[in-house]
Amino acid sequence: MLDQRLLPAEERWLEIADAGAAGRAIADLVVRGAPAIGITAAYASVLAANAHPHDRAAWDAELDALVRARPTAVNLAWAVERMRRLVPADARPGDRRDALEAAARRIHADDIEANRTMARLGAERIARGSRVLTHCNTGSLATGGIGTALGVIVEAHRQGRVVEVFACETRPWFQGLRLTAWEFGREGVPCRVLVEGAAAGLMAGDGIDWVITGADRICANGDVANKVGTLMLATLARHFGARMMVVAPVSTVDPGTASGREIAIEERDGAEIWGTLGLDKAPGGARAWNPVFDVTPAGLIDCIVTERGVLEPPFGAAIEQLNQSSESA
Amino acid sequence: MLDQRLLPAEERWLEIADAGAAGRAIADLVVRGAPAIGITAAYASVLAANAHPHDRAAWDAELDALVRARPTAVNLAWAVERMRRLVPADARPGDRRDALEAAARRIHADDIEANRTMARLGAERIARGSRVLTHCNTGSLATGGIGTALGVIVEAHRQGRVVEVFACETRPWFQGLRLTAWEFGREGVPCRVLVEGAAAGLMAGDGIDWVITGADRICANGDVANKVGTLMLATLARHFGARMMVVAPVSTVDPGTASGREIAIEERDGAEIWGTLGLDKAPGGARAWNPVFDVTPAGLIDCIVTERGVLEPPFGAAIEQLNQSSESA
Repeated sequence: MLDQRLLPAEERWLEIADAGAAGRAIADLVVRGAPAIGITAAYASVLAANAHPHDRAAWDAELDALVRARPTAVNLAWAVERMRRLVPADARPGDRRDALEAAARRIHADDIEANRTMARLGAERIARGSRVLTHCNTGSLATGGIGTALGVIVEAHRQGRVVEVFACETRPWFQGLRLTAWEFGREGVPCRVLVEGAAAGLMAGDGIDWVITGADRICANGDVANKVGTLMLATLARHFGARMMVVAPVSTVDPGTASGREIAIEERDGAEIWGTLGLDKAPGGARAWNPVFDVTPAGLIDCIVTERGVLEPPFGAAIEQLNQSSESA
Repeated sequence: MLDQRLLPAEERWLEIADAGAAGRAIADLVVRGAPAIGITAAYASVLAANAHPHDRAAWDAELDALVRARPTAVNLAWAVERMRRLVPADARPGDRRDALEAAARRIHADDIEANRTMARLGAERIARGSRVLTHCNTGSLATGGIGTALGVIVEAHRQGRVVEVFACETRPWFQGLRLTAWEFGREGVPCRVLVEGAAAGLMAGDGIDWVITGADRICANGDVANKVGTLMLATLARHFGARMMVVAPVSTVDPGTASGREIAIEERDGAEIWGTLGLDKAPGGARAWNPVFDVTPAGLIDCIVTERGVLEPPFGAAIEQLNQSSESA
């Protein structure tokens, strides 16, 4: 696993040999991005079956620990539960070893294909000459393939639809500066990095046509939990006349969560904020308020691009239809 | 001069012996905050008179260089021009040495007194039990006295009106985290630091009653140029039902600038963004968009607290009245 905490200064690969190490890698942000976390958890479920071939309870406990590694990312729970269902309650994980590995590889392959489809569908919505702004990292480091929001932007740039790309640096982890700028460079897409505080001035000045982000969880009503700062960008987009596109695979949709009000926001240690300055505590004895995600209400979102089509408001109905087609598929 | 770039890790004092060094200290952000810059420039004008007692042209050139050190900060030009007027066109700076020093000390003393008045007037507007959010640093490091926005918050906290204080870290220079958290700690005001991207979630969640900031320039119509991120906070405040208070001495008001459209936004090198990570260039060959200020339109501001009273919308008329009382004073 590529240790994303060190990028772009260093490309260090870690060997993840068991599910416990995979869970720690997810919790410590060695790997991040909702789809990439889901794929990691799927493979980790196979490692757990290797470790406990005859012990269903131990395997279940490993899977439970994986789900707890990042509480907000629904793809994580989705992937783990999909794996869990492959082993009937009275069966041993070792008996289903091949089926588990095939399922993990399938989750990975499906994500690559879903990325391609979303890139094509999202790009179609973007008019020629557009200026776009993205947040956090939603590229190949966050997914199995080209990415979600980043995939749309790369494809739209290739088609000549996007002429200017801006990326928020994305505090406190700098995913935009460290990872997204690095990925855009590898894809040949020139981009400009800004601090989050500059996004309003950017929209008020020469303007932005689309804010394009990924999602960590999409509720049944279309509310979107995503990297902290997404709600700010969506609110500014509405105020300044830009449009808001969310790009995420169907596995991100959580029909069990009615609205964003039901989502407990994951808060992390303030050391993530002041550690950037090499400080081990905050100046003046200050504490931090350091939520990882925020929830953007459906009303601020113009479209949600999935691999099964582009959803339009009202999202509740569109998501219900999506679920019905999933169940019948 | 206390080198603010090193705070809070190190308290290093620099000896500033001539106007050139003062100008560099302003440009390099050794000293920052519109009122503190004005005071620095006033004292620097005295140093320039010491250096060129018989050479009016050389003195004028030093003053011009000071004004160019930070183009957006109107207090800088205001202080320098106030000093320049003390030496008639046909006079030598050395002849007015005592008057220049007295004027610089007066600018400094007036700022201390203005801070006290603004703190009192601003605090009166804040209801008991309020939660406030501030940006950048507007305390004793940015002014001659207790500060502008920070002075209001400290006073309102002392009076029991403010119960929770939040401070944006303020990228790319971290003035909020480094300086404001440090100052609140010294004033005994508990505060929590957040990244700019979290401000929307804060307002959407438990809520904020007042966003309170300083200003670098206030236009004749009430548009406010201030630290990048201020426009974001003002826009979010309007969306989420918080109020926006700007606190600044009358010297910040620039009747010669009709509206924010006339203000050229100072852009700085992208190294300020990626240098935080120890990188000497951006990942992927990215460029930066790194404006220092943004302009908040008067329509997003609820009140402007000055030492001569609290201005209410429509600000154009209130500012005109303020100017008339200045001229008659």
